[in-house]
Amino acid sequence: MIRFECDYTTGAHPKILEALVSANGEACPGYGEDEHCQRAAAMLRDLCQTPDAGVHFLVGGTQANATVTAAALRPHQGALCAQTGHINVHETGAIEATGHKVLALPATDGKITAAQIDQYCLAHHADLAREHMVKPGMVYLSHPTELGTVYTLAELEAIYEICRRWRLLLFVDGARLACGLAASDVTLPDLGRLCDVFYLGGTKAGLLFGEAVVIPNPNLDFDFRYLIKQHGGMLAKGRLLGVQFEAFLKGGLFLEIGRQEAAQAMRLREAFLAKGFGLFVDSPTNQQFPILPDRAVEALGKKYSFEVWARVDEGHTAVRFCTSWSTTDQDVSALIADIQAL
Amino acid sequence: MIRFECDYTTGAHPKILEALVSANGEACPGYGEDEHCQRAAAMLRDLCQTPDAGVHFLVGGTQANATVTAAALRPHQGALCAQTGHINVHETGAIEATGHKVLALPATDGKITAAQIDQYCLAHHADLAREHMVKPGMVYLSHPTELGTVYTLAELEAIYEICRRWRLLLFVDGARLACGLAASDVTLPDLGRLCDVFYLGGTKAGLLFGEAVVIPNPNLDFDFRYLIKQHGGMLAKGRLLGVQFEAFLKGGLFLEIGRQEAAQAMRLREAFLAKGFGLFVDSPTNQQFPILPDRAVEALGKKYSFEVWARVDEGHTAVRFCTSWSTTDQDVSALIADIQAL
Amino acid sequence: MIRFECDYTTGAHPKILEALVSANGEACPGYGEDEHCQRAAAMLRDLCQTPDAGVHFLVGGTQANATVTAAALRPHQGALCAQTGHINVHETGAIEATGHKVLALPATDGKITAAQIDQYCLAHHADLAREHMVKPGMVYLSHPTELGTVYTLAELEAIYEICRRWRLLLFVDGARLACGLAASDVTLPDLGRLCDVFYLGGTKAGLLFGEAVVIPNPNLDFDFRYLIKQHGGMLAKGRLLGVQFEAFLKGGLFLEIGRQEAAQAMRLREAFLAKGFGLFVDSPTNQQFPILPDRAVEALGKKYSFEVWARVDEGHTAVRFCTSWSTTDQDVSALIADIQAL
Amino acid sequence: MIRFECDYTTGAHPKILEALVSANGEACPGYGEDEHCQRAAAMLRDLCQTPDAGVHFLVGGTQANATVTAAALRPHQGALCAQTGHINVHETGAIEATGHKVLALPATDGKITAAQIDQYCLAHHADLAREHMVKPGMVYLSHPTELGTVYTLAELEAIYEICRRWRLLLFVDGARLACGLAASDVTLPDLGRLCDVFYLGGTKAGLLFGEAVVIPNPNLDFDFRYLIKQHGGMLAKGRLLGVQFEAFLKGGLFLEIGRQEAAQAMRLREAFLAKGFGLFVDSPTNQQFPILPDRAVEALGKKYSFEVWARVDEGHTAVRFCTSWSTTDQDVSALIADIQAL
Repeated sequence: MIRFECDYTTGAHPKILEALVSANGEACPGYGEDEHCQRAAAMLRDLCQTPDAGVHFLVGGTQANATVTAAALRPHQGALCAQTGHINVHETGAIEATGHKVLALPATDGKITAAQIDQYCLAHHADLAREHMVKPGMVYLSHPTELGTVYTLAELEAIYEICRRWRLLLFVDGARLACGLAASDVTLPDLGRLCDVFYLGGTKAGLLFGEAVVIPNPNLDFDFRYLIKQHGGMLAKGRLLGVQFEAFLKGGLFLEIGRQEAAQAMRLREAFLAKGFGLFVDSPTNQQFPILPDRAVEALGKKYSFEVWARVDEGHTAVRFCTSWSTTDQDVSALIADIQAL
Repeated sequence: MIRFECDYTTGAHPKILEALVSANGEACPGYGEDEHCQRAAAMLRDLCQTPDAGVHFLVGGTQANATVTAAALRPHQGALCAQTGHINVHETGAIEATGHKVLALPATDGKITAAQIDQYCLAHHADLAREHMVKPGMVYLSHPTELGTVYTLAELEAIYEICRRWRLLLFVDGARLACGLAASDVTLPDLGRLCDVFYLGGTKAGLLFGEAVVIPNPNLDFDFRYLIKQHGGMLAKGRLLGVQFEAFLKGGLFLEIGRQEAAQAMRLREAFLAKGFGLFVDSPTNQQFPILPDRAVEALGKKYSFEVWARVDEGHTAVRFCTSWSTTDQDVSALIADIQAL
Repeated sequence: MIRFECDYTTGAHPKILEALVSANGEACPGYGEDEHCQRAAAMLRDLCQTPDAGVHFLVGGTQANATVTAAALRPHQGALCAQTGHINVHETGAIEATGHKVLALPATDGKITAAQIDQYCLAHHADLAREHMVKPGMVYLSHPTELGTVYTLAELEAIYEICRRWRLLLFVDGARLACGLAASDVTLPDLGRLCDVFYLGGTKAGLLFGEAVVIPNPNLDFDFRYLIKQHGGMLAKGRLLGVQFEAFLKGGLFLEIGRQEAAQAMRLREAFLAKGFGLFVDSPTNQQFPILPDRAVEALGKKYSFEVWARVDEGHTAVRFCTSWSTTDQDVSALIADIQAL
Repeated sequence: MIRFECDYTTGAHPKILEALVSANGEACPGYGEDEHCQRAAAMLRDLCQTPDAGVHFLVGGTQANATVTAAALRPHQGALCAQTGHINVHETGAIEATGHKVLALPATDGKITAAQIDQYCLAHHADLAREHMVKPGMVYLSHPTELGTVYTLAELEAIYEICRRWRLLLFVDGARLACGLAASDVTLPDLGRLCDVFYLGGTKAGLLFGEAVVIPNPNLDFDFRYLIKQHGGMLAKGRLLGVQFEAFLKGGLFLEIGRQEAAQAMRLREAFLAKGFGLFVDSPTNQQFPILPDRAVEALGKKYSFEVWARVDEGHTAVRFCTSWSTTDQDVSALIADIQAL
């Protein structure tokens, strides 16, 4: 079985593992106050051109999303988010558990637009009964989205402008950002300039675990470590995060992994298109969503693991193939050959 | 200005006020442990044919909805609800503030169906990633709904069956139940038999305030008073609720008020239809939603207060007229005359 | 049975009831946006000399405490409070239900001091592990306290200074403030000048219900009505609160009621002392806590209702007698005679 | 600098690290559904003699404490806990963030007794105003405690009996349980028999991270994975936990590490006592709390890291020395020599 069902099936990239093994004997202060964390944070501030941003390393995405949302919103505020967004669907209500409503906006490709946000806020403020409704306080985007799509810089700048106009905080979930950087014109300095908070995910790009939360907005960063602790995100042996991110950032390893994930995915995309299969959504990143005839699903399922995404019509199913840091050329070539042979 | 904008513009029905004035000098234990509350609770148990149900008197609907939801759900569970439902739209996130997601189902007339609930639960339990999603734990209905529509007994029984199958609690918000009883074949004993919890609203039917929560399910009722206190719903001079509900229930005053609200609304409905105006939704209760040409909105707005509901098309707007316990024959006759004269 | 067990056994003061009856037929906008509420708010702003303060009328104290706390604190912050404080003991965890810890300080007479607050904050900020602990964000006082004691102006000013130094918000629970104004040198303008938020209670001073929350701090007042709604405190027929507070404030009725409650309590206090009974705590307000021999408890209990407070030693019990707006001269004279006759 | 300031300064025990490296290339399902987790869970069920218990691997202790508490309590319930308990002091209000009050009981050595619990419950249920107070729903113990002390089997059994009587759930925080097993007569089967839920900590006993939560009570275990996800505790590469716990449990490595930590600590304890220093609390586990003269604190501080615990009197300070899996014989011998030389 060659595995394409997600991007976290294997352990750490060899360089990450090596760094962990090499640092294992060191004695360090706990809770992220060690030198590895400090160095990794400094590297990330440099990369984002945000010399004063807070940088915090958390273990996972749900933690990051819940902690940021709790820090960002007053009790009566909610987070605007695509209907398909992770915090709306796949966090078992972690956002609501912090007391906040997710305000879902329609989205077919995982993305929302500045115009949608504007319209929502206009309608809210025009409503005489608005005090009886949750007030939008933050915009939550994923880049790439749950469906692998990415925002262009122009789209992100438009959203930034709307957020400024309506005094909304802008939060970008970058669980797959390494791949997003490879597949869009949005850079780390752009995120540093436009976001109040965002994170660079490690878990889905070759780390054992870890998400690096960058907070350019100093008001949001104030006392943020208290909130990390409250939400169970303060790792006792915090240097595990620092060590991994040092290795991840050093020499642009994260970019290399992201590019490689995207490149392998593009090979798959072309193979599906060449075979005449449609795409449920056209993604430039490491998640690919071909629409396959049922017999193809069955045939490929014997040799490859992938995820059933949605029933499209009688006879066709959208599925998801994920590439990861550990996907090899041979894995992809084998799959392409089998696609061609269908 | 003759007021039709909502059903809580005036004070109390004369019989309610009289009861309050008459009991004003009595010294009673606080917090709902007085004889008025006990008598009113006993009357309601009789009316519902639920001799063992818990009965609790709360001040308002948001309190009732939040307290019941907090009592009913475990942390990972959510409440299935029509997209238009009060807890999804008009509680400023009170449900989410208790940590729970509202799981909104599409609804055009304010109602959801047994089939929708079944489908949602089937999909949830079939999803391999269901532990990453909020689990449905309760069904929340309003009867009448936000749009004035009502459930038939057959519909309610079908929903009850589905709730049993999926182990969902069934909660009926009866903020306007007095009117709903007049306009549907669902009776108090039906609610007592089919619901885990429901309430009979007083605020919108001639009380100063007050909602009588009936809990036939003993597990849900256990320790419920602790939760009322925690949610700020335990009124120090609790007898105010008991006194009002005694008068409300005595001799069927609540039914009389509900019937009168509905009857006045039906006179309006016929006048709108006779004039050739469409209905945004066809409601048999005290909220009426005619679709008016803009000039009619303007003309009627000079003499009557009502609520703008939705823009329907260029030139037409759906509006809401509400009748209440204090709407007089003359008020309605005047409005009908002005409709005919448009 | 003559009742001294609490200050909310009877209904409304005649002037309050008269105002309610007289306004019953008026048609008003809902949710506290009526003219009665506006007039009462203006009167209270005048009395407090806080022309720009937010004023909001809520139904009860638990609601007021939970809503203010939720509005005031970020998620990692807690409220400093006397161990005996209402939010620490008698709200069934309503504060914790908003996600916040109550940071209890030792207190024998219900009061905390500026020095205690200072010491707590010093210790917190000196602790290297402070991010693992709840950060003090607000000071909660009651005036009068649960034990009937009051703050002097000098004490309150010292607490205010400490709050400024440590950037703590200052919140005064005034559920019995009418009586506190009669029994201390703290005035409404003092509270308006020193507090970020406080409230003037009506429930325990002759209203059917109602607490008037005054918020001189504009940051705290911003969007406060959203939070009232979320916490179930926005009364549909909100004018009931406006009407009652108009009558309560008009001509200083609230001061008169407070003075009368205190005066009757002082008569009781003297009778207990004259008889040689000690005081569990020496209160200048409407709650009196004599320490009685068990036979006196038994003897008085046949004719008067009061509350058992604490077992003091073999043979003696501290009890609580409360006076209220409806306590008559005769009630008190009868009790005094029976004390003397013990 | 030789480090005794805590038990999580270094990385993983060599056998743990080796297991992680060896499994790094494997492709596994995510979220704890891999074979490593299944094997480790089976081993733990065997060790605890709880063949049907739920076993769940979480990353850290705050997560475990918050998730268990959220799962265990209804909204109006709180957790009884020693005043010094971790959830009361060092979780930045994570318990309160789930909506629950920590009900702190006085404790000088970190332990609470069955009698204290009984007394609290008796008082609660005897109080006529109990519905206005948080109801005890769970007992939280740490074994060992924050102060290194342990419960005897007899004490634990007495607490179990009281919990049964009052229908309280019993939860034992075993962050340092490996060491506790070495220093008390309580065994894993005892915990399996007496607790509703407990955990065996890895972070402080040689793992990179990880706490194994064992839930013998099936009602509490039901749907527990939803709650893990909601609280951010579901690790994407969950096999990291399974792999570590397999190695930790295999051949009793956890017991060996625990014994070694305790043995090194006992050597220190004897050295302090031999030198005539008192103990702040007499701990049989890996945390030692000698009371040192200030000059000794200063002298030892030049060569060893340790934690200042409490000021005892003018001239003396209680400090904490921790041993860990990585503390060597030489480290301890050096420290003993320096203690003797003081």
